[in-house]
Amino acid sequence: MTTLVPFPVRIIGTGLIGGSLGMALARAGESAQVEDVSPGTTALAVELGVGTLPGPEDPDPALVLVAAPPDVAAQIVARALRVWPRAIVADVASVKATVLEGVRTHARPADLPRYIGAHPMAGREVSGVVAARGDLFQGRPFVVVPHADTLPEAVTALKGLATEIGSVPVTMDAAAHDTAVAHVSHVPQVMSSLVAGTLLEPTEAALGLAGQGLRDTTRIADSDPRLWVEILGANAAAVGDVLGGVQERLSDVLEALDSLRGSPDPAIGSRRALANLVVDGNRGVRRIPGKHGGGTDAFATVVVLVPDRPGELARLLTEIGQIGVNLEDLRLEHELGRAVGLAHIAIDATREDLLTRSLTERGWTVVEA
Amino acid sequence: MTTLVPFPVRIIGTGLIGGSLGMALARAGESAQVEDVSPGTTALAVELGVGTLPGPEDPDPALVLVAAPPDVAAQIVARALRVWPRAIVADVASVKATVLEGVRTHARPADLPRYIGAHPMAGREVSGVVAARGDLFQGRPFVVVPHADTLPEAVTALKGLATEIGSVPVTMDAAAHDTAVAHVSHVPQVMSSLVAGTLLEPTEAALGLAGQGLRDTTRIADSDPRLWVEILGANAAAVGDVLGGVQERLSDVLEALDSLRGSPDPAIGSRRALANLVVDGNRGVRRIPGKHGGGTDAFATVVVLVPDRPGELARLLTEIGQIGVNLEDLRLEHELGRAVGLAHIAIDATREDLLTRSLTERGWTVVEA
Repeated sequence: MTTLVPFPVRIIGTGLIGGSLGMALARAGESAQVEDVSPGTTALAVELGVGTLPGPEDPDPALVLVAAPPDVAAQIVARALRVWPRAIVADVASVKATVLEGVRTHARPADLPRYIGAHPMAGREVSGVVAARGDLFQGRPFVVVPHADTLPEAVTALKGLATEIGSVPVTMDAAAHDTAVAHVSHVPQVMSSLVAGTLLEPTEAALGLAGQGLRDTTRIADSDPRLWVEILGANAAAVGDVLGGVQERLSDVLEALDSLRGSPDPAIGSRRALANLVVDGNRGVRRIPGKHGGGTDAFATVVVLVPDRPGELARLLTEIGQIGVNLEDLRLEHELGRAVGLAHIAIDATREDLLTRSLTERGWTVVEA
Repeated sequence: MTTLVPFPVRIIGTGLIGGSLGMALARAGESAQVEDVSPGTTALAVELGVGTLPGPEDPDPALVLVAAPPDVAAQIVARALRVWPRAIVADVASVKATVLEGVRTHARPADLPRYIGAHPMAGREVSGVVAARGDLFQGRPFVVVPHADTLPEAVTALKGLATEIGSVPVTMDAAAHDTAVAHVSHVPQVMSSLVAGTLLEPTEAALGLAGQGLRDTTRIADSDPRLWVEILGANAAAVGDVLGGVQERLSDVLEALDSLRGSPDPAIGSRRALANLVVDGNRGVRRIPGKHGGGTDAFATVVVLVPDRPGELARLLTEIGQIGVNLEDLRLEHELGRAVGLAHIAIDATREDLLTRSLTERGWTVVEA
C-alpha cells in the first residue's frame, strides 16, 4: 500500500458501504481487517474480498472506519475510540450532525480529537455486502467532516483514503454537509417519491401518455424504504427546513391554480406566481455543475435520430469517435415502440458545429435540442 | 397522399406544433394550407416547408387544424366552423376541457358535431416554427378527444392524421385527457420546478455533491415559463386536484420530520409516514409503462463500466449488437471527470443472462444494477 492511509485499517460493519470500502482498499493493494455484528455477514464479506478477519496477533488498527447505520454509529465510534486509544476513528454514515452529537454524548472528551466524520457518496441506493463494489466511490465526492477539535492528521488520513480509492475529497463541517445532502439528495428523493405516489390513481390509459419527463422525475423513487426512513429521520432538521420552503411555494402555486380554475377573473398575481415557480426552477437547475465540475454552459447537446435497430447507436458513436469528439454524456429517448429513437449527445460546446456538420455529412439527421 | 386524411388540410397557427404538423404532412406527401396571425411567421413557415399559402382558387379545407394557445383556440375554432361549413375542425392545444367549453360558448350548436379536440404529444417544450420538425410526433401518443356530439367521421379523420404522421392514436374524452396530462406531465413539471427552485440557496460546494438523482429530477425544470403559465392555467382544476393530494402528503412528511427532529421520543407513526411515502412511490413508479407499452418487468437493466475515452461506448454497443441483443434503452452515468462511466443498458429480461455472460467473456465489467 501507500503512505496516504494509516495502516492497518479496520472496517466495522460490512454492508454495502463498508464492503465497498474494503473492496476499494483491496484494489489499492491493502487488505482491511473486517468485523460485523453478524458473523455470517463477516464471513461472506471475507469471501467476497472485503478484507480479512483480524487475528489475535494482528496489530491494532491505526484507522477505524465505522460503516453502521446513523442510529448506532455513534456508540460504535465511542467504543472504538476507547478500545484503540491511538487510532483515528471515522464513521461513514450518510448524515453527520446526529452522529457527531451522539459521539460527543458517548465518548470521553479526551478521545474526541481522534474522531472524524466522513461520507463517501455512493451512486446507488442498494444495500448489503452482495451489492458491494470496489468502484462504488470512484469519481464520486468523498466528504471529510472534521469537528472543531478533530486532529489535523485525522483530516489528512481521510483525504488520503478518499484519494486512494479514487474518490474526490471535499471538506465540510457536519451542518454544511447535512444541508448539502438535504438539497442534492434527500429533498429530491422525497419529491420524486411524492410524484411517483400520485401515479397510483391514474388509469393505465392515462399512464400510457407518459414521456421521458415523468420517467426522469420518478427514477429514484424506486428506492429502499427502510434505508430512506433511516436517512430522512437522521437528517430530519435539514430536510424539514428545505421541504418547509417547498411547502410554502406549493401553497402559493395551489392558491394560484385555485384562482385560475375556471374563473373569468383570477386573482391578480396568479399567473405571476406560476411564472416565478418556473423561472426560479430555470435558475436553480442551471446552478447544478456539469460532469467536469464546470457550469452546464460548457456543454452543448446534439440530438440525433437513431433507427431502432441493433447496431445503429453503436455506428453513431463509432462515427462520433472517428470525428474526434469526446462524448460527455448520452441519453437515449424513445417511446411506444416506434422505429426511431433520439440520442441526446452532450459534448464540449466548442465542438458542436463540427459534430453537427460532420454527422449531417455522414447522413445522420441532427435535430434541434 | 392518402385516403386517411380529408383533403385539403388547413393549419391555423404555425408555431412549434402547427409547424411540425405541416412538416409531418409534407413528409407524408401532402402540402397543407397554412396561415398565422403573424404574416412574418407565415412566410417563414412556408419557407421552412410547413405548407403553402392558400390562394383564392384553392378549394376549401376539409380538415382544419387550429394550433393556437388554449386561451385563443376556441374562438379560432368557432370562426373556422362558421367559415367552412363542411370542414372538420380540430384544435391541437395541450389542454382540452377549457377549449371544449370555449367552443361550446362561441360556436353555433349546429356546428359542434364537426369539432373535435386533439393533442399530438410533443417530446420537448421549445417553441416557435424554427424549432418545428416533421418527426416531432413520431412514435408519440396522439390523443383524439371527441365530445358527446362529435361526428364519427371526425374521429376517423383525426385517427387517420395521427397514423399518417407516425403517431399512435389514443382516444379519450376531454376530462380524462386533462387528468392524464396533469398526472404524467403537468404535476411532474411543477414538482421538478419546485426541486430546482430549492437550488438557489445552497453553496456551490454543496451543489458539487450533486449526483445523477438530482440531475434526473430537475432536467425538465429548464423549461419555458410563458408556455407553462399558459398550460398550468388552462389545466388548473386537474393539476390543482393532484397537487392538493401532494400537499396533504407533504404535510404528513413535514409533521413526521418535525417529530423526528432531534427528539428522543418522536410521535408514534412518524417513521411509518416516511416509509409509506417511499413505498407508495415504489408502487407508483412501477406502474409507468416501459418503452413498448408493457410493464417495466419485461426489461432488465445491465450496468457496464465504460472507460471515459472516445470510442469505448461505441465498442460496447457494437459488441452488444454482435452478441445479438437489442438495446431497449440506454443511460450513461458519470460524474466529476473520472476515468470511468456506467452504461445502464435496458434489454429484454430474457436476454439478461446471455448479455451479462457474453460481455464478461469479452472483458467488460458488468456490475450490479
